[in-house]
Amino acid sequence: MSGATFELEGTDGRARAGWVKTARGRFATPCFMPVGTRGTVRLLSAEDLDRAGAEVVLANTYHLMLRPGAKVVEALGGLHGFTGWQGHFLTDSGGYQVMSLPCKLDEDGVEFRSAYDGSWQRLTPEGALEVQAALSSDIAMVLDVCIALPAERDAVLEAGERTLRWAERSVAAREAREGGGAGQLLFGIVQGGTEVDLRERFAERLAGMGFDGFGIGGLSVGETPEETLTALSACLWPLPSCRPRYLMGVGDPLTLLRAIALGVDMFDCVLPTRLGRHGTALTSSGKVAVKAGRFACDAGPIDPACGCEVCRRYSRGYLRHLFNAGEPSAGRLLSLHNLAWLFCLLKRAREAVLAGRLGELVEEVAATWAPAGAGPGS
Amino acid sequence: MSGATFELEGTDGRARAGWVKTARGRFATPCFMPVGTRGTVRLLSAEDLDRAGAEVVLANTYHLMLRPGAKVVEALGGLHGFTGWQGHFLTDSGGYQVMSLPCKLDEDGVEFRSAYDGSWQRLTPEGALEVQAALSSDIAMVLDVCIALPAERDAVLEAGERTLRWAERSVAAREAREGGGAGQLLFGIVQGGTEVDLRERFAERLAGMGFDGFGIGGLSVGETPEETLTALSACLWPLPSCRPRYLMGVGDPLTLLRAIALGVDMFDCVLPTRLGRHGTALTSSGKVAVKAGRFACDAGPIDPACGCEVCRRYSRGYLRHLFNAGEPSAGRLLSLHNLAWLFCLLKRAREAVLAGRLGELVEEVAATWAPAGAGPGS
Repeated sequence: MSGATFELEGTDGRARAGWVKTARGRFATPCFMPVGTRGTVRLLSAEDLDRAGAEVVLANTYHLMLRPGAKVVEALGGLHGFTGWQGHFLTDSGGYQVMSLPCKLDEDGVEFRSAYDGSWQRLTPEGALEVQAALSSDIAMVLDVCIALPAERDAVLEAGERTLRWAERSVAAREAREGGGAGQLLFGIVQGGTEVDLRERFAERLAGMGFDGFGIGGLSVGETPEETLTALSACLWPLPSCRPRYLMGVGDPLTLLRAIALGVDMFDCVLPTRLGRHGTALTSSGKVAVKAGRFACDAGPIDPACGCEVCRRYSRGYLRHLFNAGEPSAGRLLSLHNLAWLFCLLKRAREAVLAGRLGELVEEVAATWAPAGAGPGS
Repeated sequence: MSGATFELEGTDGRARAGWVKTARGRFATPCFMPVGTRGTVRLLSAEDLDRAGAEVVLANTYHLMLRPGAKVVEALGGLHGFTGWQGHFLTDSGGYQVMSLPCKLDEDGVEFRSAYDGSWQRLTPEGALEVQAALSSDIAMVLDVCIALPAERDAVLEAGERTLRWAERSVAAREAREGGGAGQLLFGIVQGGTEVDLRERFAERLAGMGFDGFGIGGLSVGETPEETLTALSACLWPLPSCRPRYLMGVGDPLTLLRAIALGVDMFDCVLPTRLGRHGTALTSSGKVAVKAGRFACDAGPIDPACGCEVCRRYSRGYLRHLFNAGEPSAGRLLSLHNLAWLFCLLKRAREAVLAGRLGELVEEVAATWAPAGAGPGS
């Protein structure tokens, strides 16, 4: 549909460093997208995102279509006018949230009750694109069928086949309204659970449909990290190399780096901001519970190896106090640090790919972030 | 004790524009101090205070002495090291909070239960200064006896006389530990309720004790704005003109400007931040309820006449959405706007004093901010 949407700058094995090209401009990969659920990354402002170094934010279609409503966002200038943030927005289709709640799924789409006012709402592949067009994100995602893992092979197959039929309807809907998309990129989504052969088959079929990029969905939903990576690996090779690949919902530092090593370009996750709100810092020594009593008189920064604005200005002792006093600034400052820390890790990954040394970085991160019981590199 | 603590730059009638001089440097007056209850202005960071234009922040001794404790703040470098904010801090004595709760008052001091752990605590004039020395604020306040209005004249007299005895003990305590204060200014506090003759008498006696500045306390606690201004006027003339005068706890725009016209230099109040957290904006057209339905699709700023960072970037429609979605960013952005708006009003007041046109500004503000039922200028 569009021209090349991914420009390669360098590789290290299967890992890629490059740029995703959109109508708005481009952003560097590998990249991590914080989640701006209701038109804002919780507790953070547009200035905060700029200063932390965010390039792309994920906005949740489900929440925005219900409140304030896509028409309101459109009237206020789309997501960029609405939020005042001028970076890139990617919108999900809303399907993931809808299908986590009680809903009625059929071949046409999915029916669900609004969590805000209890009204019945319907989301279809075509409708999800219409809403995202009104939101004016830079990248839209197709509506797919998400299921929880572990799942029977038959259920995975059925969900994956329907996802493909919905992908075809999405492409047709976009062609029908060509020009209406106004330069919005459209990503298909590979499903297939942990069934390696289904992942490959679905990816191959999706690859031929002419999408601008590809999400890998339905992972990090209950399976082990090893299962995640095996399933991921199976769907990457059939995808065209001139298109970005986006592993949806993954944010833990080690899985993220291993996925980069397999050839993933984009990630999103609520992890850094959710952990931050609840008092857990991401640091070069692993997770740190900032509320811990031993930090009461600690004048040092959260992470001495971090150069973010929070680490430059605030002590562990002060941040601990803010959490203990119930001050919402605490969660805000730790969200800011966690995002800046993760952006910095992604930047190091990009540099490592370009220098052909990603393996070293993966080992370094594994030494700190490998799950308990697993040795580094396992 | 110190040299001149107030440098006059210009007057307009009784109104003054000048500088308060401290060991840290100086700040311009008239000035408004936001309230940083627990070592942070709720929802705001040190960067936010800098960008909004804050020069002085009030920190609450009551809260900090109980959590994290004055010794912890001292170990982390006093309020400046602790909070990471390098502007001026004024600390209150803790008396106002303590005496708003059930407590046992005697000639020695006041005993109260900690709101945090229920333990019994004691605050004396000497102890309040010790705590504030540990907090290392730039300006400390004496412990005074606060009573609610309306009150019997006898009660006002008794509280005021005890306040004077405590003021004498505070001066003696400071002299005993001279050098220990490390350049911290000490302000006395004039009490006297709405009894004009008591206000005058107490101010005269306090004026002779050698304080670095003077708080006017016990106002804006239930009396009418006219009663506030009459009582205020009575205590200002006996105070030395080379010392700053601080009207405690007043933040509504019109009373603030009228107090400036009477010769007040400093103010503090929770009003702008508390209103902001609850969805009310201070604007050049008066108070605006940002949550109102009519703003849903309004792309305009909160106050078209305001140049603050919030008004430059965010629409009423977006801020309304953030409030309706329960996003804490909403309260943060509106707190930022309200503070910036009030700082800007104070700056205009300063310029008006220097230009000999404060009366015009008071009339302009009265036209918008006079209480319902009262005509402009009444």
